[in-house]
Amino acid sequence: MKQQRFQPTDALVSPRFAGIPTFMRLPHVPDPRELDIALVGVPFDGGTTYRAGARLGPRHIRVQSALIRPYHPNLRINPFERYRIADYGDISVNPLSIEDSFRRIEVAIDELLVHGVRPISVGGDHSIALPILRAMARRHQPLSVIHFDAHSDTWDEYFGSKYSHGTPFRRAIEEGLIDPTRMLQVGLRGQVYGEEDFEFARSKGIEFLSTEDIFERGIPWVIERFQRFRGTPCYLTFDIDVVDPAFAPGTGTPQIGGPSSREIVALVRGLQGLPFVGADLVEVSPPYDSAEITSLLAANLLFEFLCLMSCDA
Amino acid sequence: MKQQRFQPTDALVSPRFAGIPTFMRLPHVPDPRELDIALVGVPFDGGTTYRAGARLGPRHIRVQSALIRPYHPNLRINPFERYRIADYGDISVNPLSIEDSFRRIEVAIDELLVHGVRPISVGGDHSIALPILRAMARRHQPLSVIHFDAHSDTWDEYFGSKYSHGTPFRRAIEEGLIDPTRMLQVGLRGQVYGEEDFEFARSKGIEFLSTEDIFERGIPWVIERFQRFRGTPCYLTFDIDVVDPAFAPGTGTPQIGGPSSREIVALVRGLQGLPFVGADLVEVSPPYDSAEITSLLAANLLFEFLCLMSCDA
Amino acid sequence: MKQQRFQPTDALVSPRFAGIPTFMRLPHVPDPRELDIALVGVPFDGGTTYRAGARLGPRHIRVQSALIRPYHPNLRINPFERYRIADYGDISVNPLSIEDSFRRIEVAIDELLVHGVRPISVGGDHSIALPILRAMARRHQPLSVIHFDAHSDTWDEYFGSKYSHGTPFRRAIEEGLIDPTRMLQVGLRGQVYGEEDFEFARSKGIEFLSTEDIFERGIPWVIERFQRFRGTPCYLTFDIDVVDPAFAPGTGTPQIGGPSSREIVALVRGLQGLPFVGADLVEVSPPYDSAEITSLLAANLLFEFLCLMSCDA
Amino acid sequence: MKQQRFQPTDALVSPRFAGIPTFMRLPHVPDPRELDIALVGVPFDGGTTYRAGARLGPRHIRVQSALIRPYHPNLRINPFERYRIADYGDISVNPLSIEDSFRRIEVAIDELLVHGVRPISVGGDHSIALPILRAMARRHQPLSVIHFDAHSDTWDEYFGSKYSHGTPFRRAIEEGLIDPTRMLQVGLRGQVYGEEDFEFARSKGIEFLSTEDIFERGIPWVIERFQRFRGTPCYLTFDIDVVDPAFAPGTGTPQIGGPSSREIVALVRGLQGLPFVGADLVEVSPPYDSAEITSLLAANLLFEFLCLMSCDA
Amino acid sequence: MKQQRFQPTDALVSPRFAGIPTFMRLPHVPDPRELDIALVGVPFDGGTTYRAGARLGPRHIRVQSALIRPYHPNLRINPFERYRIADYGDISVNPLSIEDSFRRIEVAIDELLVHGVRPISVGGDHSIALPILRAMARRHQPLSVIHFDAHSDTWDEYFGSKYSHGTPFRRAIEEGLIDPTRMLQVGLRGQVYGEEDFEFARSKGIEFLSTEDIFERGIPWVIERFQRFRGTPCYLTFDIDVVDPAFAPGTGTPQIGGPSSREIVALVRGLQGLPFVGADLVEVSPPYDSAEITSLLAANLLFEFLCLMSCDA
Amino acid sequence: MKQQRFQPTDALVSPRFAGIPTFMRLPHVPDPRELDIALVGVPFDGGTTYRAGARLGPRHIRVQSALIRPYHPNLRINPFERYRIADYGDISVNPLSIEDSFRRIEVAIDELLVHGVRPISVGGDHSIALPILRAMARRHQPLSVIHFDAHSDTWDEYFGSKYSHGTPFRRAIEEGLIDPTRMLQVGLRGQVYGEEDFEFARSKGIEFLSTEDIFERGIPWVIERFQRFRGTPCYLTFDIDVVDPAFAPGTGTPQIGGPSSREIVALVRGLQGLPFVGADLVEVSPPYDSAEITSLLAANLLFEFLCLMSCDA
Repeated sequence: MKQQRFQPTDALVSPRFAGIPTFMRLPHVPDPRELDIALVGVPFDGGTTYRAGARLGPRHIRVQSALIRPYHPNLRINPFERYRIADYGDISVNPLSIEDSFRRIEVAIDELLVHGVRPISVGGDHSIALPILRAMARRHQPLSVIHFDAHSDTWDEYFGSKYSHGTPFRRAIEEGLIDPTRMLQVGLRGQVYGEEDFEFARSKGIEFLSTEDIFERGIPWVIERFQRFRGTPCYLTFDIDVVDPAFAPGTGTPQIGGPSSREIVALVRGLQGLPFVGADLVEVSPPYDSAEITSLLAANLLFEFLCLMSCDA
Repeated sequence: MKQQRFQPTDALVSPRFAGIPTFMRLPHVPDPRELDIALVGVPFDGGTTYRAGARLGPRHIRVQSALIRPYHPNLRINPFERYRIADYGDISVNPLSIEDSFRRIEVAIDELLVHGVRPISVGGDHSIALPILRAMARRHQPLSVIHFDAHSDTWDEYFGSKYSHGTPFRRAIEEGLIDPTRMLQVGLRGQVYGEEDFEFARSKGIEFLSTEDIFERGIPWVIERFQRFRGTPCYLTFDIDVVDPAFAPGTGTPQIGGPSSREIVALVRGLQGLPFVGADLVEVSPPYDSAEITSLLAANLLFEFLCLMSCDA
Repeated sequence: MKQQRFQPTDALVSPRFAGIPTFMRLPHVPDPRELDIALVGVPFDGGTTYRAGARLGPRHIRVQSALIRPYHPNLRINPFERYRIADYGDISVNPLSIEDSFRRIEVAIDELLVHGVRPISVGGDHSIALPILRAMARRHQPLSVIHFDAHSDTWDEYFGSKYSHGTPFRRAIEEGLIDPTRMLQVGLRGQVYGEEDFEFARSKGIEFLSTEDIFERGIPWVIERFQRFRGTPCYLTFDIDVVDPAFAPGTGTPQIGGPSSREIVALVRGLQGLPFVGADLVEVSPPYDSAEITSLLAANLLFEFLCLMSCDA
Repeated sequence: MKQQRFQPTDALVSPRFAGIPTFMRLPHVPDPRELDIALVGVPFDGGTTYRAGARLGPRHIRVQSALIRPYHPNLRINPFERYRIADYGDISVNPLSIEDSFRRIEVAIDELLVHGVRPISVGGDHSIALPILRAMARRHQPLSVIHFDAHSDTWDEYFGSKYSHGTPFRRAIEEGLIDPTRMLQVGLRGQVYGEEDFEFARSKGIEFLSTEDIFERGIPWVIERFQRFRGTPCYLTFDIDVVDPAFAPGTGTPQIGGPSSREIVALVRGLQGLPFVGADLVEVSPPYDSAEITSLLAANLLFEFLCLMSCDA
Repeated sequence: MKQQRFQPTDALVSPRFAGIPTFMRLPHVPDPRELDIALVGVPFDGGTTYRAGARLGPRHIRVQSALIRPYHPNLRINPFERYRIADYGDISVNPLSIEDSFRRIEVAIDELLVHGVRPISVGGDHSIALPILRAMARRHQPLSVIHFDAHSDTWDEYFGSKYSHGTPFRRAIEEGLIDPTRMLQVGLRGQVYGEEDFEFARSKGIEFLSTEDIFERGIPWVIERFQRFRGTPCYLTFDIDVVDPAFAPGTGTPQIGGPSSREIVALVRGLQGLPFVGADLVEVSPPYDSAEITSLLAANLLFEFLCLMSCDA
Repeated sequence: MKQQRFQPTDALVSPRFAGIPTFMRLPHVPDPRELDIALVGVPFDGGTTYRAGARLGPRHIRVQSALIRPYHPNLRINPFERYRIADYGDISVNPLSIEDSFRRIEVAIDELLVHGVRPISVGGDHSIALPILRAMARRHQPLSVIHFDAHSDTWDEYFGSKYSHGTPFRRAIEEGLIDPTRMLQVGLRGQVYGEEDFEFARSKGIEFLSTEDIFERGIPWVIERFQRFRGTPCYLTFDIDVVDPAFAPGTGTPQIGGPSSREIVALVRGLQGLPFVGADLVEVSPPYDSAEITSLLAANLLFEFLCLMSCDA
């Protein structure tokens, strides 16, 4: 296999603490024409209903990603050998306006898609999934969505506002961006406001697997459920709060009782073979982290996503 | 089912970070005549033998409980619809005197019991269980006790003192407040001072399940052991250090190797159907917490306790 | 002097760590008819351009205000003896919308003013000064403004948006809420974007004293400058970042080289005798604090404000 | 000058991070017969009315004292050359009982005094000053007391209890241990409960200098006030909260607006020439510290105390 | 069984927060002639390639080991009754020179071995294993090595340097200190630089079990694999990063997806019966810890090691 | 004045939390031919004798420098308008070898000097001053050195090693790199090992001003002392520990009693007019910082240095 142009700085040659921190110590390449897969920061948390801070997610995940080495011994793959992958930089958002930020995000993602780049967006809060899906849906139809999260994010509104990190998937379905029967939610758990909170999903035909489902049925059973998405374009949207707060404390609305990092990685590796055209990882909120373990986990998950998107080739 | 008077502030209407922090954003109702179940703070940690700090437990658990939503999708219950539940405030303790504090706690709990209120006490250190049991035992006989803890808390004395967070259950048995054959201890583990530490429990007939027992036999087996307590009044006393320090670092005497938050919740849910007349949750020590995850777990456990006490209706 | 109805819980009787945390352990009194001065939380930080977190300001300042005792030995005053002062609770803001939040804040402050209550607003970020001034200006004309801050907050816009924590005073002047010649800015320092940043203030006739001015001329000289505001209604707006980050690290845009807490208190006491009709204290951002010293300083400053507003009687 | 037996481990030979942490890397010498001056830990905080934690003071101050070098270039003295100084270890206290702890402390200090050792006690909270003074007063009469503190600690009682960290000096005067006209309090500031809080001091003839007095009159003026204590035995009792929270955040009841570490050191050096027969440094509460700067300051102050007690030779 | 001379301070008599912190509150005994097993600090982290800090490992583990009680209820053993065990203090290393430090460590360990003492070394980073093995190999041949780690530490060089925490075992094999066919690595996981990273181990015949192997096959299967080491001298080298970062965040190169503390303890207990002649526990880096849980886990593991080395008697 | 090519990202257009963090949000320009002044990271802390961590200095200072705006209102200068200034990136050091790192640093600085670039080096520990001075001395003779520090850094050796952060200036003088009579040390304070520690400086004719000298004589007097360096090339070497730990806790060997950030900035501004050919800022150790205030202060000082080097034009 020919060597690609962009390689992470070798930690055996230059120490990990040296250098300007980019995602996985890759070059900063803001030109979509040079890329196959873009790691792109989306530092917007203006859709947060409780504790803000995810705007600092890209910055901290970049720093912690210095620990990532390039070869995945389980999947036996080095994604940087297969594709042109780099740090695309951050989309410049407007923390004072959700509407303006959504516009900027949609335009920027569209620019990547136009050039055939597959984006891995690093939030930011989960509200960014809506403008990303607006861009994705224009290029990929039908689009399946695999959604890891402790919460369904299909509420209707907060404080009278329609756009927030608790509502993107209801909006996306209402806007026709995704077909709810092609959506799978994994990891839901915790209290809700009432039984009616499940109505939307049930009425629309969204499949959802609670954390209790995962552990009663077992991870292999869940992975089996993923297989119906083979063959058509998939989008992966991953809220870090799906993981237990012991493993991912740095998030705005943590929910106890979730999978460990080992379990979540096993689930993610089970997505191997699905044709992902994009992904996001959201809700890492560094001000609430401890010992930066949430950012470290996020960096590892980004690497897993890169491998997923590389081994489907 | 008719709506009860006291409801948590709706987080879809008023954001969770707003307002004076009460338990679960409930009204502050210091009048026992208006309540069925009282969430009551007992900020006393003068019984601590190592690191103090549990006096700040109620304050931090109140703050983190802002994340609790009112409906339990697994148990399919909203406790606030079934019972009049509110934040009763804190019992005013005396940090300079164990004896005076014990008197104040016993009087305050008794006042609740007189009015038929079931108290859920939020410590504070585990020494508070003794004055609470003094009040409980006066109203409920025989009283079974389910005790979650990494430690048995049946030592005889520390530094020559009889009253501390390491001795409440020996005192309670000596005082005839509880029948040791109606006591079950769950989660014990870690080093002790010697084989003789188990003598008291064995000689008195206390049943105890170590953490090793739990994981060798399995959670369903433990839940089966709970069933012998059906039908007579039960008291639940829960030391947060039963949980592993990765999930509950904020405690005075952490013990490695414990259950995860998911496992402990599964165990607690297994208590469903037992007639609880009161409960406590103790030893959350915020100065030693990280990312407030211990207080968050405690808030979730309080909600589980509320559901236990509501679904037995 | 007759005793007022609302008194802080006595820390000699009930310990400071006990009880639901309100401002200065005062009763929670949400009825404006019962109040002369209201301590009111305004947990909005949607106007923040850099690091969010000030939405948690009221919560943390409430907790730290447990240390405040009621009598000021230098000014020889106990404000709670002179006026009916209580914790009014928080204004319910909308973190998803500046416009909606501004409306809610203006309405809530207006409600207080209608009843003759003087509000001390606890932010939140500095953008809240605009809706507060909209309400104040309707009731008090002409209104002088004393503004403590490391930054002038008279920029025109950020990212194309007109409303943020960097722009409230330009907007207030443009809207005619305040007469710039009746405005005094104290403590400005640090880099700016260019010499043109001072143009607005100079062209409008705003007086400003830099931190360098304060220390070259001396605090008594600054206090002398305050005297021109005697006799007409004054509003005090206080950004905690006017203080050096060693004393107030918990803020969104800290600026090194500021006054110490002792120096800032001396300046604030120098305002004695000015007829304040309202005040705010903003930009305390607890996620960036260390050892809660910023919230503690803020709690002390609120007490100083209460004394300023009480000794003018 | 002959070399003394006990010397700090040389940081040019063995690095500061190595070794079991003792005060100033001195040997641990639990035998009073071998000592002239003893650094002795008194890890008791059961007299704390608000936030506990000072029990961990000796441990953290030991660690930070690794940075202390042996020669004072301003006072031109190496105390370890002049006297036999070592880490005496900790007095074993009883966290469950003030009375028992007071007994243990008094006995232990007495044991040192019997052997002619001058103790420097490292708290622990300020309540330990009472049993220490009980022992001191038996050996040294009349005994002058220099008291650095933000608070007078002469309240009568808390929660109905007579013994706490807010009452030691009232008790000491009532018990006739110290002559109030030979007592000087330095650094008082902040709110009190009422004007009557000053009555005790005024009626007994205690001299007190507020923080405001210090900075209005100047440090040299304060030092002048110290001179009346020349010639008769003095005891120095030092509450770290006399220093501003920016310099000493790690304390239970911080009070803003205090002296800086440079200013406090200047004041302490001004005590040179007074014949100190003992000293204490209390209220360092590591759980509330940031970056360990309070423990570091305390370690430096202990070295200043050693120099004060050495240069009077 | 006769009582040994050195016993931990009894926490029922003297509180855990009191006293100068030694390992497990044992006496400090720097004389090898008095010891059977020595707990010895090796505070060297000059072999660290990413984040330094392990030099503070011994200090923090000493502090957290105050929680250890002397009796192991599962193994039914009190090691302090069987052997003379104490805190030997720290080896004085040179943070400015790997070569000099290696010399000092080898000499110090050799001194222990000469006297028949079995050392348990507390790092420090993993580079210290090389000088320790140099000393061990001189006394014990053949020597088997059980190696817990997330990383193989058999890289050839970093930045052109041969000696670091990533290379000790390659060096040890090259130097003939250990026979690679008598080496077992447990817990490897995470990305590597390429498939060639496994070449060294494969070509030399090192057995390695990845974290994935452990959980696919089960802990009992792993314990079965340990049995081939019965009967000949074993050395245990334990890198704390083998544990998941949720349980051990305080380490220099954390690797997500590892065993929990309960699982790692189960594995370590599975080593029972192997004749250990020495052990080390390395890479605890306190500056990156949260709530000191990594040091606490390390202290518990040291106790497990003591029990392993006592029950083989 | 013509606009230079490299400008900081405008914080009014793109928010400060967005983008890959470079020094002052400048472009990353690794080509010396394009630069007049280079901000260059030197992440080496292998010369640290106590607590390591300064290797992370450049990374954290980059992040905090996002707050710097481009115009200095006191000096009335925008350095980015006058010179081509950018983030040169980090010199790749070898954490495993002082000697190798010194070689790399000297070569890299020389490369800048060859192209006429003036370097501002961001450490790292103070040992890096030696290889920097080796390069500087080759190009600039005679070279004056202004040295801000709490310590003289002229010790002879530590643990038998000649090269460390405590010895660079003795080595530099011994190597003839600087003329000691052209060296001024500012801010020394704190204990030393003995009176002989001052011998080297005295015998060589190094001028030094202690912190006590600064505050006894006053800042204007110190600034007057700077004037003798006008007219010949100067090098500025700045150890952050010269500042008091309240303002700069994040450093390896903090020394209480230092200047505040306002005072240190006043001193630095007093250097205006001296012809600086290079500068460094060292010993920022982020793992020991609180609330990142040390990195923030460092970022501000770097901007002051840029202005010093720009206004001499």
